[in-house]
Amino acid sequence: MSLIVTGSIGIDTVVTPSQRAENVLGGSCVYFAAAASFFTPVRLVAAVGDDFPDEHMAVFQHFKIDTAGLEKRAGSRTFRWTGQYRKNMNDRDTLEVQTNVLAEALPAVPEAFRDSRFVFLANTHPAGQMQLLENFPSASLVVADTMDLWINTAQPELRQLLQKIDGLVLNDSEATLLTGETNMVAASNEIIKSGPKFVVIKKGEHGCLLNHADGLAVLHAYPALNVVDPTGAGDSFAGGMMGHLASVDRIDLPAIRRALAYGTIVASFNIESFSLDRLKEISRKDIDQRLEEFTECVRFD
Amino acid sequence: MSLIVTGSIGIDTVVTPSQRAENVLGGSCVYFAAAASFFTPVRLVAAVGDDFPDEHMAVFQHFKIDTAGLEKRAGSRTFRWTGQYRKNMNDRDTLEVQTNVLAEALPAVPEAFRDSRFVFLANTHPAGQMQLLENFPSASLVVADTMDLWINTAQPELRQLLQKIDGLVLNDSEATLLTGETNMVAASNEIIKSGPKFVVIKKGEHGCLLNHADGLAVLHAYPALNVVDPTGAGDSFAGGMMGHLASVDRIDLPAIRRALAYGTIVASFNIESFSLDRLKEISRKDIDQRLEEFTECVRFD
Repeated sequence: MSLIVTGSIGIDTVVTPSQRAENVLGGSCVYFAAAASFFTPVRLVAAVGDDFPDEHMAVFQHFKIDTAGLEKRAGSRTFRWTGQYRKNMNDRDTLEVQTNVLAEALPAVPEAFRDSRFVFLANTHPAGQMQLLENFPSASLVVADTMDLWINTAQPELRQLLQKIDGLVLNDSEATLLTGETNMVAASNEIIKSGPKFVVIKKGEHGCLLNHADGLAVLHAYPALNVVDPTGAGDSFAGGMMGHLASVDRIDLPAIRRALAYGTIVASFNIESFSLDRLKEISRKDIDQRLEEFTECVRFD
Repeated sequence: MSLIVTGSIGIDTVVTPSQRAENVLGGSCVYFAAAASFFTPVRLVAAVGDDFPDEHMAVFQHFKIDTAGLEKRAGSRTFRWTGQYRKNMNDRDTLEVQTNVLAEALPAVPEAFRDSRFVFLANTHPAGQMQLLENFPSASLVVADTMDLWINTAQPELRQLLQKIDGLVLNDSEATLLTGETNMVAASNEIIKSGPKFVVIKKGEHGCLLNHADGLAVLHAYPALNVVDPTGAGDSFAGGMMGHLASVDRIDLPAIRRALAYGTIVASFNIESFSLDRLKEISRKDIDQRLEEFTECVRFD
């Protein structure tokens, strides 16, 4: 089933305690789209500047992502982000942001994309997310991501968005910021009262919690030893999750549970390299093999 | 199969953001023993002072704990601890400690306890843990807990202990302190190189990680909404774990995985009240029911 993602494309510089990657491909919808592409065809709506290099464009071809909605805007520059991870590889500091094209008009949604059934609004200003959402009248599942910046600066718009979406994905500190609750069950209960039918709280190396009208789910993360760069872990998690749901064309609780496991596994590959390097090396078979290993890891029957 | 626990008994005062409990029964081996008692008969070796109230003694009878090794020492005072939880209910500050009887001679191990097969050395000075261990020549499984204090002040003795035990239980920050590793897979690998066949890293609300010669296991915690007092969560987790292993008389990886789930569930009840109040209300049936609910919560097949 058709899956579409809207969001940011970035040129990232990432510094970890032991390594550095300069001007690599990043951005929320890039990690999402690559991760989802293992499960289902993916359409992408985003804007870059005319500085966006061809070698990065080739990555979309590798993952067979439909880039009819990728606008290379003349006279604009691509969003750029520089971040540095601390020793624990979880906390990071943003060293520099150049908003560039993200501060301009939203990209146009091609007419051919209006029939998209599974919609993921990756992290951008909630007013922009709502505007983009208007282009998908046939959507059967709409899930959005958000971040602390919008909770702090655009909460009225974010609360409007919450009433228009089926699911929200955010991390634990953001869930606390949005609700004032430090207990994740309580926080997710509060968010559900604000609109969405389900909430997925991402907890990085600790896993995730799903609060859904039909029940709760919790899943520990894959126990990863080889963590090179956590950038995009949350977006690739969401991509694996939505990719699976679109591929089975289901949105019930058991399907979402399975989707969380796929998201967990794709994210575990993503963090094994900078940018999309590891995801470029693997196939669906690698994902299924690691899922099998992970299933063994979490079973207790 | 016979399960024995050695460790501390305390009179605790616990302050949370919304409540306060004065002079309640606590201590590592108390939480452990109560939790384990749902699965198997439990023997206890510990010392209290002559200030130890009869009402607390009655709690051991409630859980049918064999207190032949509980020494009420004339002229001594019971260990006392006062702690305060922060708003997130995870971080806590110790406001006062009176070591009292814990600074004196170790309690004697009754002759009748020397045939114990499953041994848990709850948190005390590692030199004391080693000395107590000498009383159990028939042990088929020896597991110890430790804490930051001993890693900082008695690491040589702790490293000796690691070579004499089968399993170590500790929390994530302690694992980092002991090994210098912030990645829990790496930290547990390092600990296994120091001696024990397996390590269980407790991560509070995030669950636990098991590193065993035969494989890894990870388990998210039970998604608890009602957290009144986290004191004793780790000890009741260990109690549920060891209680299950002793009851099935197995120490293989699948058995330990199942044991982690039982530990998770007993701990989830323990935190619903101060002291042992919630554990006093429940039965094995309640544990099995919640385990079934939890199984549903973590499945993704």
